[in-house]
Amino acid sequence: LRESLDLLLQGVQEVKEAAAEQARRYAWTPMIGRTHGVHAEPITFGVKWALCYEEFSRAQERLRKAKEEAAVGKISGAVGTYAHLGAWVEERVCQKLGLGYGASSQVVPRDRHASCMAMLALVGASVERWATELRHLHRTEVGEAQESFAPGQKGSSAMPHKQNPVRLERLCGLARLLRGYGLAAWENVPLWHERDISHSSVERVIFPDATILLDFMLAEFAVLIRTLRVYPERMLQNLEISQGRYASESLLLELVRRGRSRKEAYEAVQQAAFASQQRQEPFWVSAAREPRIAKSLTAEEIEKLVSLEHYLRHVPEVYRRAGLKPPHPWEHQATEGSGSLGNNPETQENTFP
Amino acid sequence: LRESLDLLLQGVQEVKEAAAEQARRYAWTPMIGRTHGVHAEPITFGVKWALCYEEFSRAQERLRKAKEEAAVGKISGAVGTYAHLGAWVEERVCQKLGLGYGASSQVVPRDRHASCMAMLALVGASVERWATELRHLHRTEVGEAQESFAPGQKGSSAMPHKQNPVRLERLCGLARLLRGYGLAAWENVPLWHERDISHSSVERVIFPDATILLDFMLAEFAVLIRTLRVYPERMLQNLEISQGRYASESLLLELVRRGRSRKEAYEAVQQAAFASQQRQEPFWVSAAREPRIAKSLTAEEIEKLVSLEHYLRHVPEVYRRAGLKPPHPWEHQATEGSGSLGNNPETQENTFP
Amino acid sequence: LRESLDLLLQGVQEVKEAAAEQARRYAWTPMIGRTHGVHAEPITFGVKWALCYEEFSRAQERLRKAKEEAAVGKISGAVGTYAHLGAWVEERVCQKLGLGYGASSQVVPRDRHASCMAMLALVGASVERWATELRHLHRTEVGEAQESFAPGQKGSSAMPHKQNPVRLERLCGLARLLRGYGLAAWENVPLWHERDISHSSVERVIFPDATILLDFMLAEFAVLIRTLRVYPERMLQNLEISQGRYASESLLLELVRRGRSRKEAYEAVQQAAFASQQRQEPFWVSAAREPRIAKSLTAEEIEKLVSLEHYLRHVPEVYRRAGLKPPHPWEHQATEGSGSLGNNPETQENTFP
Amino acid sequence: LRESLDLLLQGVQEVKEAAAEQARRYAWTPMIGRTHGVHAEPITFGVKWALCYEEFSRAQERLRKAKEEAAVGKISGAVGTYAHLGAWVEERVCQKLGLGYGASSQVVPRDRHASCMAMLALVGASVERWATELRHLHRTEVGEAQESFAPGQKGSSAMPHKQNPVRLERLCGLARLLRGYGLAAWENVPLWHERDISHSSVERVIFPDATILLDFMLAEFAVLIRTLRVYPERMLQNLEISQGRYASESLLLELVRRGRSRKEAYEAVQQAAFASQQRQEPFWVSAAREPRIAKSLTAEEIEKLVSLEHYLRHVPEVYRRAGLKPPHPWEHQATEGSGSLGNNPETQENTFP
Repeated sequence: LRESLDLLLQGVQEVKEAAAEQARRYAWTPMIGRTHGVHAEPITFGVKWALCYEEFSRAQERLRKAKEEAAVGKISGAVGTYAHLGAWVEERVCQKLGLGYGASSQVVPRDRHASCMAMLALVGASVERWATELRHLHRTEVGEAQESFAPGQKGSSAMPHKQNPVRLERLCGLARLLRGYGLAAWENVPLWHERDISHSSVERVIFPDATILLDFMLAEFAVLIRTLRVYPERMLQNLEISQGRYASESLLLELVRRGRSRKEAYEAVQQAAFASQQRQEPFWVSAAREPRIAKSLTAEEIEKLVSLEHYLRHVPEVYRRAGLKPPHPWEHQATEGSGSLGNNPETQENTFP
Repeated sequence: LRESLDLLLQGVQEVKEAAAEQARRYAWTPMIGRTHGVHAEPITFGVKWALCYEEFSRAQERLRKAKEEAAVGKISGAVGTYAHLGAWVEERVCQKLGLGYGASSQVVPRDRHASCMAMLALVGASVERWATELRHLHRTEVGEAQESFAPGQKGSSAMPHKQNPVRLERLCGLARLLRGYGLAAWENVPLWHERDISHSSVERVIFPDATILLDFMLAEFAVLIRTLRVYPERMLQNLEISQGRYASESLLLELVRRGRSRKEAYEAVQQAAFASQQRQEPFWVSAAREPRIAKSLTAEEIEKLVSLEHYLRHVPEVYRRAGLKPPHPWEHQATEGSGSLGNNPETQENTFP
Repeated sequence: LRESLDLLLQGVQEVKEAAAEQARRYAWTPMIGRTHGVHAEPITFGVKWALCYEEFSRAQERLRKAKEEAAVGKISGAVGTYAHLGAWVEERVCQKLGLGYGASSQVVPRDRHASCMAMLALVGASVERWATELRHLHRTEVGEAQESFAPGQKGSSAMPHKQNPVRLERLCGLARLLRGYGLAAWENVPLWHERDISHSSVERVIFPDATILLDFMLAEFAVLIRTLRVYPERMLQNLEISQGRYASESLLLELVRRGRSRKEAYEAVQQAAFASQQRQEPFWVSAAREPRIAKSLTAEEIEKLVSLEHYLRHVPEVYRRAGLKPPHPWEHQATEGSGSLGNNPETQENTFP
Repeated sequence: LRESLDLLLQGVQEVKEAAAEQARRYAWTPMIGRTHGVHAEPITFGVKWALCYEEFSRAQERLRKAKEEAAVGKISGAVGTYAHLGAWVEERVCQKLGLGYGASSQVVPRDRHASCMAMLALVGASVERWATELRHLHRTEVGEAQESFAPGQKGSSAMPHKQNPVRLERLCGLARLLRGYGLAAWENVPLWHERDISHSSVERVIFPDATILLDFMLAEFAVLIRTLRVYPERMLQNLEISQGRYASESLLLELVRRGRSRKEAYEAVQQAAFASQQRQEPFWVSAAREPRIAKSLTAEEIEKLVSLEHYLRHVPEVYRRAGLKPPHPWEHQATEGSGSLGNNPETQENTFP
């Protein structure tokens, strides 16, 4: 179990490195952020990876804790009283094997193993979270990223035109199995008196099955991150679907700052957003026409408030929070690159199929 | 519990009726079918509702079974031996109350209640399935249907432009709770000897919580189905994203039927699909140009094979399977309507915002 | 899956037959019934087996339902619309294979499989219930029955004197695994649109693992029932621990019948029970001395009310409820046997080790 | 949530203190240790409480970790990019509130809350373990300890003679609920993109329900520990049921130490154990008569090897491992007390009813 957990820790490390690399590469690749599956406000693709990186740092910490919980030995006799061997034997042997030790009955108490398994289930849920994220980006209508697809690979046996995120979906399924194992481990805790052996049949299944599955999941996920096909142009296109309506909050807050009541500002901005939607015109145009907004802001001010530069100016802060080296500010990037956000030459290699 | 289950049966009935109505209304509203989140082959929006209808017919049957399992009484004394009252008392009282009866210990055996709760969790999972479906359709990039949004309702407190499927999301969350309750009910089965009371504290929570939650879920879901905003034009637009590439299997099968090896046919069709994608041209054009296809099929034949009429000709069969009155064939519909699939005037009232 | 379920149905049948045999053999072997682990009122050992028999009749019904749910085929094409093959093909093929069929997407809807798995988990919980029962009877202090122990078998590698119910404990552990699998199956229900493949990895694990485990559990359990070592003398000894205090309710009810308020009767009987406990004397003696009881009942009436004959007179009714042929009444049995309850020669072969 | 966890930490502290007190009081109260529900080797009642104490030290550590995981704030805007307020605001506010902070989407990532809930479920399972222990001791045939019973309390509405461990059973039931909540929390992790609100309905139920339930469980459990009725005489009686056969391993090991093969020694000791059982004579007598044992050991040596003093000499070590002050060695105790193990006057106040 301890050695398994060491392998799993390596697996998490690989996921973290893959995520860090994507975070660096796509630090300034803008895309729309989505809440409820609906366009919210802009982020960059790198921001997602920074969060992924941070989540797996927590996963790492959890696996370390899991190891500490489970890597415990005991040589304390049939009921834990050292009746036949002094306690020093247990101590010395465990130290030699690099294991912890504590009070025990006939067995090491099973809350330790249940805690360990809960951590595995939890790391699995984190894999599922990010696999779900990528499955969403892979959807035909979104098309911002795709699970890699080997040349010559069949997407679908029946439908030759398809390329499906089957490996990402598999990761989501496997996370369900881990939850089932975690549950069985919890039920193992209340053994009878100094032990009954009901936990043993369970552990013979869940320890190998859960550790092997999670090892596979982490390795697979790291590969899927590294080989992900990313479509920055498509991200920009999707970002522009709403013609800038994502920027409504900027306007709202600025109006409030300039003395409007929140209620009035909210209604004015909502009105402008609906108008922009109905007329299919840029949000800043509708906003500039809305009298309750125009009273307080010039068209120029409005345009600046709804710009990507405005929305993404604090991105480096997110990286710092996530424990990653923050990217250079966009302006710096721009002088070396193509000069405007979303045209980072490094990230333009792919076209959505 | 029995009365709760009667209410839940009514709730399922309302979901079924709402689904049946949508199935009837959108029987001939074409849209793309999606597997793995990726465009597959055309279906109609009504087909989804026919499947939903059928799933809730199973839910109904399950709740009836749940009622039969749980609506059981006992008056058999402290350990189930009728030591103080003859068995005829139990029989007569239970019959009068409309309850079943059987052998019992101090309590009705808890496998009955666990079975009942498993059914509730399962009905919850069915609600979750269809709520997830609608959440996907509500996504900004898909936009084929939207959870209703009352005029004046705030979509998001921070972002005035948003309309979020929050009630559908809530249904998905509540299904998780039901699974947790189902699980606790399973653990209630192995009581000690003629009973211990460990199940009681659990049931005092899960019976009211699960039945009330599911009642809410079913009522809410029926309303969400009925008030769903549907965008048939958007469905057509999305369908056309792939320029007919969804029809690859028709071509593939016809080529095989005309004597090509499956392998050769597959490669030819895949080639045509990739070409259509790269050139952004209709699939049938690319297909007609692909020599291995052109050898076997005329352009006209190809066009017919990839038509919606061809793909949807058996839709009434799906309705029959689902236990619904099948819609009139499309041709019949067409003579009364606008003459071509996807232009059913009844379903055109909405425009995607 | 269908064939697995047929095997499982056989397994349940074997459990039922083993239980029925024990029910017949021990129909008139008295023992104490226990609630909360505390002596309650007398039952017979056969009564337990009658309840077990009935529970596995429900298990059988559930597995039949599980088969009906899961043994369903589909040949309806990539999205369930029969686009490439008429629906009659599915119908004919499924009928030939003895499978059901219904509306489908790319796959048979997963609520069916989740329902099937919930049934397996539930049957597992029933095994757990009865294995737990036998583990309790096997406890050193109870000693009324023991898991079989092959001559020469090692009870414990460290403690040569031990004979442990390890196989019964294993059954309890395996039931936990089944619950975990059932849970994963529930999470498989909400696939995306016309299907995603996330359920597949789960099912590749849980279908074989759950069916094989349950098959083992049922086979093992049938053997454990048949080879159980039963100690009727020990049952009698335990029954007599409380010197008849188990009969308090008979007295209580008779006092109420004779006009005492329930409150007064309850206190009088409780007083007598505490006295019997403190003085370690037969309950009927203490009861006869308690003035509030003696006012209403003679010592002879008291003795009759607390007799085993009185307590067990409706045992045949339990068998009838459980779907078993009821045993001959005790009197009939007695004339052929040793003449008093608890001395059935057929059941006396064992002495508790 | 943070404040709830502080209350729960207090609850665990109370359990620990109650356990420590019992560990101190019953340090030298011998009883049989049981594995598989079967007598194994002697322990003292205090040893159980030392293990309980240690398990709740781990519970404490887990709750501290849970608090660290969950007590995290965020003010990073609609999608986590600090678009409208610099990151310093979040930092300052969280510090002021004593909350952590990190990278976030629209919400604090839900793996944190799932981890927190898993810890609560785990602490619940630990309560269940020890409540199950006490339920076993409360069994009529065991009778070594009993849940407290207020004078005048009704044990059973129907059976005036009964005193049931109903509060301990309730604790076991509530642990099942916590597992269900833990599970729902795990499923909350994979939210869509920058968040969907499906977790919210779940958390509105599970956060209050789980924390309130666990708070009740811990408070109740601490009271049940403190008010437990303990019967040391009964413990001694049960210990003597097997007439010293629990000491088989001592003999076995000594024989091996003196040069016998393990196989031969095992068989000899097993033979002696069976003989002692069949003849109902003290194990050391049977052992002294068994030729393969007698060859190596004198009757005196055998008697010493099977003595309680021998078996319990390392008990203080268990306390040290558990983080408790070890009790004075038995000899020291004995000079102040009644002079032999198991006759500690302080622990003799109760007689089993």
